[in-house]
Amino acid sequence: MTRYVVIGGGAVGGALAAQLVPAGHDVVLVARGEHGRAVAERGLVVRRPGRVDVVPVAVASGPDEVALRPDDVLLLTVKTQDAEAALAAWAWRPVEGGGVAADLPVVTFQNGLLTEDLALRRFARVYGATIGIAASHLTPGEVVSPSEPPAVGMVWLGRYGAPADALQQDLVADLSDAGFAAWSVPDVRAQKGAKLLANVANALDLVAGDDDLRAEARARLRDEALTVLQAAGHPLPPSGVLDHGAVDFRVLPVEGHVAGRLSTWQSFARGASSEVDYLNGEIVLLARRHGVPAPLNEAVQRLLGPAGAAAGATLEGLLAAGPALV
Amino acid sequence: MTRYVVIGGGAVGGALAAQLVPAGHDVVLVARGEHGRAVAERGLVVRRPGRVDVVPVAVASGPDEVALRPDDVLLLTVKTQDAEAALAAWAWRPVEGGGVAADLPVVTFQNGLLTEDLALRRFARVYGATIGIAASHLTPGEVVSPSEPPAVGMVWLGRYGAPADALQQDLVADLSDAGFAAWSVPDVRAQKGAKLLANVANALDLVAGDDDLRAEARARLRDEALTVLQAAGHPLPPSGVLDHGAVDFRVLPVEGHVAGRLSTWQSFARGASSEVDYLNGEIVLLARRHGVPAPLNEAVQRLLGPAGAAAGATLEGLLAAGPALV
Repeated sequence: MTRYVVIGGGAVGGALAAQLVPAGHDVVLVARGEHGRAVAERGLVVRRPGRVDVVPVAVASGPDEVALRPDDVLLLTVKTQDAEAALAAWAWRPVEGGGVAADLPVVTFQNGLLTEDLALRRFARVYGATIGIAASHLTPGEVVSPSEPPAVGMVWLGRYGAPADALQQDLVADLSDAGFAAWSVPDVRAQKGAKLLANVANALDLVAGDDDLRAEARARLRDEALTVLQAAGHPLPPSGVLDHGAVDFRVLPVEGHVAGRLSTWQSFARGASSEVDYLNGEIVLLARRHGVPAPLNEAVQRLLGPAGAAAGATLEGLLAAGPALV
Repeated sequence: MTRYVVIGGGAVGGALAAQLVPAGHDVVLVARGEHGRAVAERGLVVRRPGRVDVVPVAVASGPDEVALRPDDVLLLTVKTQDAEAALAAWAWRPVEGGGVAADLPVVTFQNGLLTEDLALRRFARVYGATIGIAASHLTPGEVVSPSEPPAVGMVWLGRYGAPADALQQDLVADLSDAGFAAWSVPDVRAQKGAKLLANVANALDLVAGDDDLRAEARARLRDEALTVLQAAGHPLPPSGVLDHGAVDFRVLPVEGHVAGRLSTWQSFARGASSEVDYLNGEIVLLARRHGVPAPLNEAVQRLLGPAGAAAGATLEGLLAAGPALV
């Protein structure tokens, strides 16, 4: 049976482990430092609506501590800025019975549009996954998972750089069995694009200003990003947004958890580097390659690029970087 | 006047500094560790045909030690695998008088096809440069530069992601004045592609076998890569190869220097990581994205990806990975 090697123990990796282990899957969670040690000692503490689960899961601090097997599937859940180093560290590790990790399937859960190409450079079988989940990871040993089955999170998953295949269906089935709403899609770049249109506003959590300005900034960042993706010929879902059909995805209150603070805020709260160069920065790159302007996304990237530069930033100042409203 | 901030003190960065300083340019060489300290103490030792020059050059160990100015031009000469970290470290550094380094022009000298996009994600003005040079860097404080003006090396340079501009002409003029054969080109991706067709054979320096097999392996790697670049629609020069017109580029003997060992061999000799994932690996990525096979380039990538795996490799074994000769 498939063993899942979850590379990255943050909100996404933790939530995946928290669902796959109780569903009967063999899981190794690769998590470093204090977080990894805490999970190894006490299990993964999963704060859910109305209860706290402790999920026992095997922990490794890196590729040296995992004896890879031919039926392993790698779930890459580190942030985009850490994906290249992780892929390089894992790709050429030996697999029991012959071959290397690059022969194993790898599922890329990152935001932005970059990681699938980083993976495909070394791994022959890459499955892109777009995940919508309100999980968070701020405390070593813990993950907050504020939604419940059948939609602990929503996952759109598809083979990248090759036609849809049987494994793609199996992965979606395993995720569904484990409590996720999951869909097999023909071209996951469309879902990655749709999610990026939302993620370009992540950084606004860090900028001071009232709710009206925040809504305006969110809409204008999205509109600018949409224009850029269209100019670049990047695919999007038919509706333009992530389609979750009849699934009722609900975020419930969890004790001690402030809802609505997205991964960029969490990264800054933990003092980690931000993903902004791969969210707003991806739009900026595509805009430059295709000769269209992206002043607001440029302004956000500049705001968060330098460490600590967001301090004192205001939505009014940010919006001044964009074209005047008509 | 333009000051050149040369980021990376290896063979390419060292050769650039060795030419630009005597030509009267203000240069800062960014070089870390023992190499940087040696250059700072004694100047850059440049081993040339029949003589040794010592070139005095300002040295910085990183962005913290350079007060950037509005007329600086950044020359990025680190290897591709180190480019992202260097670009991230420099992009948001302040520039005297306002703005950040990402506002300054950056010239990307890397092999492969990746670095221009890494740069354009943060820097608005990116100039790609393809360099043909036999320089090497194996000893701290030293660079070997085995060619002489007017062609110490050959450089094809062009704005990336935007039309050709005046600065592109100025950069080419400065390089020409400094002893390089330099051309301004309309789409430097073509020259990057042509160079890659040669670089896919770099790794053969590390594989045992006779000259006939080596020539066969070189030709087959190149043919496979050419098929992939064509399938990907990647531009190439009209002739398919780097066009150096009437320029007679000559590599002369330099005492203590073994000619013909390329950058991949030098990296392994210094114990540094290899660029193979961005040379053969770039072909592998494009092959997978465009549904064409690239078994020989895959075999080379696998051979050099794992540290030390090349030991004991043979050309016969490598060639067995490719399709049978007809």
